[in-house]
Amino acid sequence: MKAHFEKHIREHFPFLFKSKILLAVSGGLDSTVLTHLCHNLGLDIGIAHCNFMLRGEESDGDEAFVREYASGHNIPFYVKRFDTSAPACRTGRFAKANKTSTQITARNLRYEWFDHLLDAEGYDYLLTAHHANDSLETMLINMGRGTGIDGLTGIPEVNGKTVRVLLPFSRKRIKDYATSHNIAWREDRSNASDDYLRNHLRHHAIPALEDGISNFLQGASKTQEHLKQAQQLLSVYTQELKVKFTQPYLLNNVTAGVSIDIKGIQSHPAPEAVLYALLNMYGFTAWDDISALMDGQTGKQVFSATHRLLKDRTRLLLLPIQEESTEAYFLWEENEAQQELPSGVLHKEITKSDEVAGRNSIIVDESLLHFPLTVRRWKEGDSFQPFGMDGRKKLSKYFKDEKLSLIEKEKIWLLCAGDDIVWIINQRADDRFKITKNTTQRLLITYNDTTH
Amino acid sequence: MKAHFEKHIREHFPFLFKSKILLAVSGGLDSTVLTHLCHNLGLDIGIAHCNFMLRGEESDGDEAFVREYASGHNIPFYVKRFDTSAPACRTGRFAKANKTSTQITARNLRYEWFDHLLDAEGYDYLLTAHHANDSLETMLINMGRGTGIDGLTGIPEVNGKTVRVLLPFSRKRIKDYATSHNIAWREDRSNASDDYLRNHLRHHAIPALEDGISNFLQGASKTQEHLKQAQQLLSVYTQELKVKFTQPYLLNNVTAGVSIDIKGIQSHPAPEAVLYALLNMYGFTAWDDISALMDGQTGKQVFSATHRLLKDRTRLLLLPIQEESTEAYFLWEENEAQQELPSGVLHKEITKSDEVAGRNSIIVDESLLHFPLTVRRWKEGDSFQPFGMDGRKKLSKYFKDEKLSLIEKEKIWLLCAGDDIVWIINQRADDRFKITKNTTQRLLITYNDTTH
Repeated sequence: MKAHFEKHIREHFPFLFKSKILLAVSGGLDSTVLTHLCHNLGLDIGIAHCNFMLRGEESDGDEAFVREYASGHNIPFYVKRFDTSAPACRTGRFAKANKTSTQITARNLRYEWFDHLLDAEGYDYLLTAHHANDSLETMLINMGRGTGIDGLTGIPEVNGKTVRVLLPFSRKRIKDYATSHNIAWREDRSNASDDYLRNHLRHHAIPALEDGISNFLQGASKTQEHLKQAQQLLSVYTQELKVKFTQPYLLNNVTAGVSIDIKGIQSHPAPEAVLYALLNMYGFTAWDDISALMDGQTGKQVFSATHRLLKDRTRLLLLPIQEESTEAYFLWEENEAQQELPSGVLHKEITKSDEVAGRNSIIVDESLLHFPLTVRRWKEGDSFQPFGMDGRKKLSKYFKDEKLSLIEKEKIWLLCAGDDIVWIINQRADDRFKITKNTTQRLLITYNDTTH
Repeated sequence: MKAHFEKHIREHFPFLFKSKILLAVSGGLDSTVLTHLCHNLGLDIGIAHCNFMLRGEESDGDEAFVREYASGHNIPFYVKRFDTSAPACRTGRFAKANKTSTQITARNLRYEWFDHLLDAEGYDYLLTAHHANDSLETMLINMGRGTGIDGLTGIPEVNGKTVRVLLPFSRKRIKDYATSHNIAWREDRSNASDDYLRNHLRHHAIPALEDGISNFLQGASKTQEHLKQAQQLLSVYTQELKVKFTQPYLLNNVTAGVSIDIKGIQSHPAPEAVLYALLNMYGFTAWDDISALMDGQTGKQVFSATHRLLKDRTRLLLLPIQEESTEAYFLWEENEAQQELPSGVLHKEITKSDEVAGRNSIIVDESLLHFPLTVRRWKEGDSFQPFGMDGRKKLSKYFKDEKLSLIEKEKIWLLCAGDDIVWIINQRADDRFKITKNTTQRLLITYNDTTH
C-alpha cells in the first residue's frame, strides 16, 4: 500500500523532489497521512495550519497536535488563527457581505494565507490532501448544478502552485494506510455532522450510490479520467473553431466585440454544438433561440446577463452589454455652463475665424442656434439637411449610404437645437447652422469621447 | 402543464404528426400519460403491451387495463406474453446463458418484439415513455462504471426508430399531469421494491442527492445537455484527427490495421488525449504505457483484449489480435499425403521440366530434399543460402535488406527440410535445393494463402 502512494508521487510529481513544499495540514486523517508520506519521502517541507477556533478546545487541540508533530520532526511550522466568534472577525463579515457560507469564506481566507506564505517564505508548491472522495463530491455537486464537462472532471491534480498528490486514492485506502502504519490523527467533529453539503454527500448520497453500484468511487474516478482527456481535446478544438469562425469586431478601430461567421458555422457538421462551444462562457442559456438566430432577421438579438448576440447579415455579433442611456440630455440653456454627457463631453467655445472643424468637432454660427441644446439618440423618422446639400435626408437613408453597421448606428448621438438636428456627432454636420459670410460669432463644439 | 408537454412534442418532433406510431405501454404512470398525450394530440397510434407474467394476477390486470383503454379509444392493440416461469422459457434460458439479469433479458425480448411489430404492422416510430429521472439513473450507472462522455449523456431522445418525447420532463411533472387530468394508471409493484439497481437509485441514492443539492435532477439534465453538445463536437473532431493522423496499414495490399503517425500526434497540443480519442474504442486501458510507446523502442507493444498497438519506427500500428500459432507443422513424412497449414495450404506436385516458379511457389530437386518437411515461424539465429548466392545469410539480415516491417516479419513462414531452410515462403528460395542439370525429378511446391 505504502509502495503505491510513494510510487505515485515519485512517478507523477518528480519536480517535488527539487522543490520547497508547504503542506496544508488540519491534523485530520488525510493531511496527517500526507505529512507522513512527504516526510518519509525526504521532501523539503513546511507545515501550515489554520485554526478557525470554531470548536473551542478541540480546535486548539488540533493545533497542538500538528505543532507537536512539526517540532518533533524539525519541520518549520506556521499557524494562523481566525477568530470567527469576534464580531469584527473577517470570516463573519465576509460571509455576510458576500452571502457565502462560512465554509466557503473560510476556504478563501485559508488560501489567501497560504498564498502569502508561499511568497513570504519562498515555498514553490502548496500540497493539499484532497483525495478521490473529495473529487467525486465536487463532481456530483457540479453535476447537480448543470455544469459542462469542465465541472465534471472534479478537483484538478495541479492548479497553479497547488498540487494534490493523493487525488487518485480513496479515503478508505488512506485510512488503511494510517491504520497499518500506526499513524494517529485528529477526528474533525464537523465531519461527523450533516451541517455541510459535502458531509451530506459523504454520509448519505455517496454511500447510497455505493450500495447500488459496486465500486462506484473507482468507476467515477475512471470516468473523470476519461472526461479530462475529452476536455483537453475540446479545449484545443474550441480554439481551432475560434480561429476559423470568429474575428474581433472593430468599431472605430477598437475591439468592441466578436464577429462570428454564420456561413462557416453552418458548414460544420454540428453547428449548434459549435455555437455552444464558442458562446458557452458568456452566460447564455437560450440555446434554441441562439440557434434560430443564424437564420433570423438582421437586428434580432439574444441576451445573457453580461452579453448580447446580435444577428447582423452574414454574422453574429457578440457584444458586452453596456449600460447606455437612450435618454435625451439637456446641454445648455442659453448662456448656461456646459454639462457632462454619459459617455463623453461636449465642449463649446468661441473660436477664431480661421479655425477648421475636425472629425470630432463642428463650427457653427452661434446666432443660428436656438436653445435648449440637447444630445439624444436618433430614432426612425429623424431627418436632417446634410452639410453642403440643399434637400433633407432621412437619417436611416444616410446611415445606409454610409454603410453603418447596426452597432455603429446604435452608438450614434445627435446634437439638436430644439427639434432640429445640428450635428450627427462625429459623422456629419447639418447645413442650416454652418458659418457663412454673415457669421459674426463662430462657435466650436467638440465631442470628447472617452469610452470609444 | 399540459401546454408544456404538448408544445414540446409539437416543436421538437413535428415528424410524428405525419407518421404511424407504436407506443410501448406497460400501464404504469409514464406510459399511460404518454398514451393520453399522443391520443389528445391526434397522433396516429397503436399500442404494444408486453406481459412478462412475473407478478401473476397483477400482470394480467395490467394487460387488461391497457387493452381496455385501447379498445375504448379504437386504438390498435398488440400484446405479447412471455411465460418466464416455464422451464424452457426464453427469458430464463437467455438470462442463464448470457449471465445477464432477468431485467436486461426482458428488455432485449421486448425490443425484439417491438422491432418485429414496427416492421410487420408498418409503424414508422416506436415511442417509449422514458423521462428525465430514467436518464439520470442511466447517467449515474454509467458514471459508476467508468464510462466516457458518451455514457454520461444519458438516454438519447432519438435512437434509430425509437423516440422519447418525455425525456426533458421529471417523473414528478408527469405525475402532476396525471393527477390534474384525472388519469388513472397501474402501480408497478416491482417499482416499489429494491430488487433492481434502478429502483435502488430511484428510492435511495437519487433522493439523497436531491436532499443535499437542490434541483439536482434539473441540474443533471442541464449537465446532460451540455455534454451532448461536447460529445457532438468531439465526434467531429475525432474524425478530423483520424483523417489527419492515421491511415490504413496495408499488408500485401490488404488492410491489416491502422497506422498512426507519431510525429503528427506529438505536434498536437494534447497528444495523450488524441491517442485516447483514437484508441478508446479498442478496449485499451494502459494509457500510461500507450503514451510511453510513442518514445519507446521499435517492437514494443501494448495489448487490449482484441487489439495490440505496436511501435514501428515513426508510427504506431494498431492491429487486431489474431490467434496465430507459432508452432511448427509437420508436413510430409516421405510419401505421405499433404496436410493443411493454419493459414494456407502447401501443395506439392511433380512438374514438367519447362515450368517456372512464381512468387508463391518454388521448384526444387526432389532428390535433394530430406524429410520430414516442416513449416515453422522464423527465429533469431536462423540462416539460409539465398538462391543464386554462395554464402549463408542470417534471416534477420535478409529481412533488413528487404526492408520488411515488423509485421511482415511476424507473418513469415519457413519451409524446412530437417534443419535446413528450403524456402522463405513467398520471399526467397534456398540455393541448396534448386534444380540443376542433374535433376531428374522436379517438385513444384505452391503456397495457397487464403487469409492474407
